Amino acid sequence: MLNELEQVRPADIEKRSFEIITEELGDKELIPGTEPVVKRCIHTSADFDYADNLVFSDHVIERALTALRNGASIVTDTQMAKAGINKKRLAQYGGEVYCFMSDEDVAQAAKRNGTTRAAACMDKAAAMWRDRDRREKNADGENGLIFAIGNAPTALVRLYELINEGKLKPELIIAAPVGFVNVVQSKELILTLKDIPYIVARGRKGGSNIAACICNSLLYML
Amino acid sequence: MLNELEQVRPADIEKRSFEIITEELGDKELIPGTEPVVKRCIHTSADFDYADNLVFSDHVIERALTALRNGASIVTDTQMAKAGINKKRLAQYGGEVYCFMSDEDVAQAAKRNGTTRAAACMDKAAAMWRDRDRREKNADGENGLIFAIGNAPTALVRLYELINEGKLKPELIIAAPVGFVNVVQSKELILTLKDIPYIVARGRKGGSNIAACICNSLLYML
Repeated sequence: MLNELEQVRPADIEKRSFEIITEELGDKELIPGTEPVVKRCIHTSADFDYADNLVFSDHVIERALTALRNGASIVTDTQMAKAGINKKRLAQYGGEVYCFMSDEDVAQAAKRNGTTRAAACMDKAAAMWRDRDRREKNADGENGLIFAIGNAPTALVRLYELINEGKLKPELIIAAPVGFVNVVQSKELILTLKDIPYIVARGRKGGSNIAACICNSLLYML
Repeated sequence: MLNELEQVRPADIEKRSFEIITEELGDKELIPGTEPVVKRCIHTSADFDYADNLVFSDHVIERALTALRNGASIVTDTQMAKAGINKKRLAQYGGEVYCFMSDEDVAQAAKRNGTTRAAACMDKAAAMWRDRDRREKNADGENGLIFAIGNAPTALVRLYELINEGKLKPELIIAAPVGFVNVVQSKELILTLKDIPYIVARGRKGGSNIAACICNSLLYML
C-alpha cells in the first residue's frame, strides 16, 4: 500500500494540488482575478461546487486587497475561522483577527436581546468600528473591517441591518455560513447590498474553513 | 427580504437543522449507531456525500465512547480542528486536545528528517503516549489517544508506520484529510489496519471541520 503513494516533496504538495484542481476545472470559465479564491475553496473542501457557487461583487478582489494593504482587520464568527486565518501575514499589513464569540459581554447581550451570540458579536464589532473611526479619522481605510462569516446566518442578518442603519460600513463581507436554517436567505440578503463589497458562497454550503480560506487566498495575493 | 427568514429560536436552530437533514436523507440506510456522526458531518458541511463516504470499523462508536469516558485525549493536525473541538466537554472526562503543529521542536524534526510537520507531530504524540504509558501503567485506557486528522495525509501515513512498528496504539483514528495529493491513498492505508478503531472519510473530502465535528458528535453521545 505504501508504495502507491505519490512521491511529492512536502514543499510541493500545495503546488501539485492546485495543478490538479486547474486540470480538473478544464474549460470552466471563472471571473478573471477570482481564480485564486475559487481554487483555494476547492483545495480546502475538495468540493468543485465552489466553482459555481461563489458570487463576487464588482471589483471586490481589488477593493479587498486595498483594504488589507491599508491595515483592515478581520472579524469572524467562529474560533475555528480565527485559528485558520494566516494571522502573521495579516499582521504584516497592520490587521488582526477578532472573534468575540466567547466574550462574556456578548453572551449577556445575546441573552438580554433574545438573539444569538453571533448577532451580538456584530453589534460589538460595529461599536468597535465606530469608536476607532471617531478616534483616528482618516480616509485610508485603516480602521476598516472585513467580516468573515463561516457559521451564523444571524450574523449576516445583523450585518445587513447595521449597514442599513448606517452603523457600519465593512470593507468586505465574506458570507459563507453553512447549513439548513436561514443560511440561503441570509446570503441572498447580502447579495442585495449595493455599495458593500462581498464574496458570497451562495446556497447551503460554506463553513469556517471556507471563510478562513477566502481570507487567506486574498492575503496570499498581496 | 428580511421577512423570508424562517422564525426559529436561537436554541432551536440546531434541532431544526437535524430535522431537515433527517428528512432529506429519507430512506437512506445508515449503520445503526453511526447516525449522529453522519448527520453532524452533513450539518457541518451541508454536503450529503458524507452519507456515503464515511467508513466505520466494527463497534467503533462503542469503543470510542469507552475511550472518551476513560479520559482519552485527542491529538489533531490542525489548530482549526483544535479550536473546533468541544474542549469543555472533553475535559469533563479528563481528556484534552493537543496540536503540535506550531511547536518549534516539531519544525526542527521535520526539517531534519525531510518530512512534513504533520508527520513529525505524530512522532511527538507517540513519544508522549509511550512516556505516559510507562509512567502510569494501567489498563483503563486513561492514557489513550484519539487521533483526529483533518488535513495531512502524511500524518496518516506516519500513524500507520508507528502502529506497525509497535510504537503507538491509538484508541481511535479519525481519518479526514482533504485534498488531492495522497489523500485517498492515505485513508485506504488506515482502512487496512486490523485492530485499531477508525472512522474514515473515504475519498478526497474531509477537513479540519469534519475532523472536529466527528469528535464533537462522539462527545455529544456521552
